[in-house]
Amino acid sequence: MIDLSLVPDGGLSWLDGSGPQAHIVLSTRIRLARNVERLAFATRGGAEDRARVLGLVDAAWRDSPLGKGSVRFLLDDLDGADRLLLHERHLISRELTEAPSAREGGSGAAVFLSGSTGVMVNEEDHLRLQTLRSGLALPQAYAEVEQLDAALGGAVPFAFHPEFGYLTACPTNAGTGLRASVLIHLPGLVLTKEIAKVLQGLTQVGLTFRGLYGEGSEVVGNFFQLSNQTTLGKSEAELLDHLGKIVRQVVAYEEQARQVLLRDAPTVLADKVWRAYGLLRYARSLTFEETMNLLSGVRLGAGLNLIPGVSVYTLNKLLIFTQPAHLAAFEPPVPGDPEAGSARAGYVRRLLDEEAARSAQARRPAS
Amino acid sequence: MIDLSLVPDGGLSWLDGSGPQAHIVLSTRIRLARNVERLAFATRGGAEDRARVLGLVDAAWRDSPLGKGSVRFLLDDLDGADRLLLHERHLISRELTEAPSAREGGSGAAVFLSGSTGVMVNEEDHLRLQTLRSGLALPQAYAEVEQLDAALGGAVPFAFHPEFGYLTACPTNAGTGLRASVLIHLPGLVLTKEIAKVLQGLTQVGLTFRGLYGEGSEVVGNFFQLSNQTTLGKSEAELLDHLGKIVRQVVAYEEQARQVLLRDAPTVLADKVWRAYGLLRYARSLTFEETMNLLSGVRLGAGLNLIPGVSVYTLNKLLIFTQPAHLAAFEPPVPGDPEAGSARAGYVRRLLDEEAARSAQARRPAS
Repeated sequence: MIDLSLVPDGGLSWLDGSGPQAHIVLSTRIRLARNVERLAFATRGGAEDRARVLGLVDAAWRDSPLGKGSVRFLLDDLDGADRLLLHERHLISRELTEAPSAREGGSGAAVFLSGSTGVMVNEEDHLRLQTLRSGLALPQAYAEVEQLDAALGGAVPFAFHPEFGYLTACPTNAGTGLRASVLIHLPGLVLTKEIAKVLQGLTQVGLTFRGLYGEGSEVVGNFFQLSNQTTLGKSEAELLDHLGKIVRQVVAYEEQARQVLLRDAPTVLADKVWRAYGLLRYARSLTFEETMNLLSGVRLGAGLNLIPGVSVYTLNKLLIFTQPAHLAAFEPPVPGDPEAGSARAGYVRRLLDEEAARSAQARRPAS
Repeated sequence: MIDLSLVPDGGLSWLDGSGPQAHIVLSTRIRLARNVERLAFATRGGAEDRARVLGLVDAAWRDSPLGKGSVRFLLDDLDGADRLLLHERHLISRELTEAPSAREGGSGAAVFLSGSTGVMVNEEDHLRLQTLRSGLALPQAYAEVEQLDAALGGAVPFAFHPEFGYLTACPTNAGTGLRASVLIHLPGLVLTKEIAKVLQGLTQVGLTFRGLYGEGSEVVGNFFQLSNQTTLGKSEAELLDHLGKIVRQVVAYEEQARQVLLRDAPTVLADKVWRAYGLLRYARSLTFEETMNLLSGVRLGAGLNLIPGVSVYTLNKLLIFTQPAHLAAFEPPVPGDPEAGSARAGYVRRLLDEEAARSAQARRPAS
C-alpha cells in the first residue's frame, strides 16, 4: 500500500474547515488543463509521447520550488486499491484509477503533490494542474495554481494558440483551460424544495453542477459541485469573479432557506438532524450513501448550532474515511462484511464517540 | 386531576420486570366476570340497578381485607383525561373511558383498586374482578383474583346457574367468567416471519390474540395479548393450564427465533436494535406508534444482551408514560405540539439519558 503519510498533510489540509464559509462550502478546487506543444494529446499519443511528457514535467517539477517536500506517484506502479485511495482523497481523477496498469502496457500517468497543489500527468490532458482549499477560496486557490502554472510553464512548452488560448484534448476545456469548482452543501434548499429552481438558474448563467465526485457522479448527501461551464472567451479573472458571485448568492439562498426552516418547522428540523446523529452514533452497518445522507443532516444541525460539539473537521474527515478504499486501507476487516458496512459503522461510531467525549470534557468545569 | 399516587404502587407494580420470563412476557392479567343475581345486566339495567350494584360492591369491599389502603374512583366524577390515565395504566377498560358522564346521567361505573388487584363495577358486567402481575404468572394471578372473588362473593350474591356457571352479559363470557391474558413480546417471530403460523396455531387450540389494548386494538411494537377464547365447559384450572402450556411453547418458539437471528444475521440484528436505540435517544419528535416499535427493537436488544444497561423496568415505564394521557398529565406541555410528539421524545430522551448515566456509573471502578 502507498504511504499517504508521505503526502504533505496527507493531501487533506482542505478538510480542516478553516476556510471562508466552511459551514456551507466544503472546498474550492481549481484545475488548469495544459498540454505540451508538438506532442500528440494524451488521448491519442503513444507510449513514447507519454514518456516524454512525464520526463518533461518531472524535470520541471524537480527544478521548481515545488520539488522540495513533495511526493510523486507513478500510476503504473499502483494497484487498484492505491489508486482508489488517491481518488477518494480527491488527488487523482476517476479516469486515472482506470488507466492501463504496467501489465497492460502502462499509461505513463502520474500525480505530483505538494501541499494543497498538484499535477496529474497524462490524464485526458498532458498536465492537469490543480489546487484544493478549504471553504470558498477562489482567489487564494487561483493564486496557488497560477504559481504552479508559471513554475512549470517556464520549463515545459505549453501548447498555446493566440486566438484559442491553451489547447486541450477536449475542446470544451480550451482557452483558459480553467475549471473552478466549489463543493457546496445545500440541505436547506433541498428541504425547502427550492433546489431545482436554483440549479436551473445556475445553468442559465453558464455554470454547471455535479455530484461529489465530478462529472457523471450522482448527487448524494445534498453535496453539489458548482463549476464554470465555459473556459473560452473570458479571462480567468472574469470566470472566477462570475463563479464567486454566483456561489455567494447560492450561499445566501441556502442560509435563507435554513432560517425559513428554523422559523417554520423548528421541531421537524431538529428531529431530522438529531435522528441522523442518533443513527450515525449507534448503527452497526452503514452504506456509504446512507452515511453521506446522515452526515448531511448532522452537518446541517451543527451549522445551525442545533447539534453542539461536532466540528466541521470531523464531519469532513468522516466523508473521506468512510469511502470503500479508505475503509479497506485503514480499518481492520470484519469477517462476513463484503460491503464494509460494519467497518464503516464502526469507524463512524468511534469518531463520533471521541468527539462527544472531547465535547463533554470541554464542558466540564476546570478543577 | 386524580392523584394516582393514592393508588397502591400507582397501579404499576407489574412494570418492575420482576416476574418469570419478564424478558419476553410483560404481564399476566386475569379477570373474572360476575353479576349480581336478580338485577338486570349493566348493559340493560337502569340507574337504580346500577346504583344498587355499586352500593353492594362498596359495602363488600370495605368490609373485606382489601378495603385497607385501597382506593376507589367513581367514573361519574372523572373527566376524560383522568379516565384515559386509568385506561393507559390498564386499570379500567376502553369502554369505561366512554361511559356516560355525570352530566349525561352517569353510569354508576367505578373502579376499586388494591395492590395489583381491582374491581370494575358496572362495566359490561356488574363486576369485573381483575389482577395484573409482572411476567408469566398465571397461578399467582389466579390465586389473587380467587381471593378477591371469595371475599366479594361472600357478601354479594353472584348470578350462578348450576349448568351454565356464572352468568354474564355476553354469553361468550359465561361459565367460569374467566379471561386470562398474557402480554407477550414476539419480535423474533415477526422478524423471522413465523408469526403468522404461530398465531394461526393459537386459534386452532382455542386461544386468541389481540393488540396491546385488548379487543379490537391493533398490534404495534410486536406486543401481543394471548388469551383463552372459551370460558365455558372447562374448569378454571384447565383453562389456565392450557393457556400456560401454550404460552410457554410460544416463548420457546420466540427464543428459538432469536437464536436463529443471532446466528444467521447477527449484524442485521445488532444494527436493527441499535438504530432503534439511537433514534429513541436523539429524536426530537416521536409518535406513540413509532415509540412502541422502537421500544420493541431496544427490548429485543436488551433481552439478547446486545444493548447493555437498559432495564426491562425502564422499557416498561416508557411504554406506559409515553401514552397521550400520561404525557398530558406529567410532562410540561410544549407549545405547538398538539400530538405531544416533542413532549414524548423529550420524556424518552430523559429516561434513556438517566439510564445511560446510571449504567456508566455502575461500570466505573469504585474509588
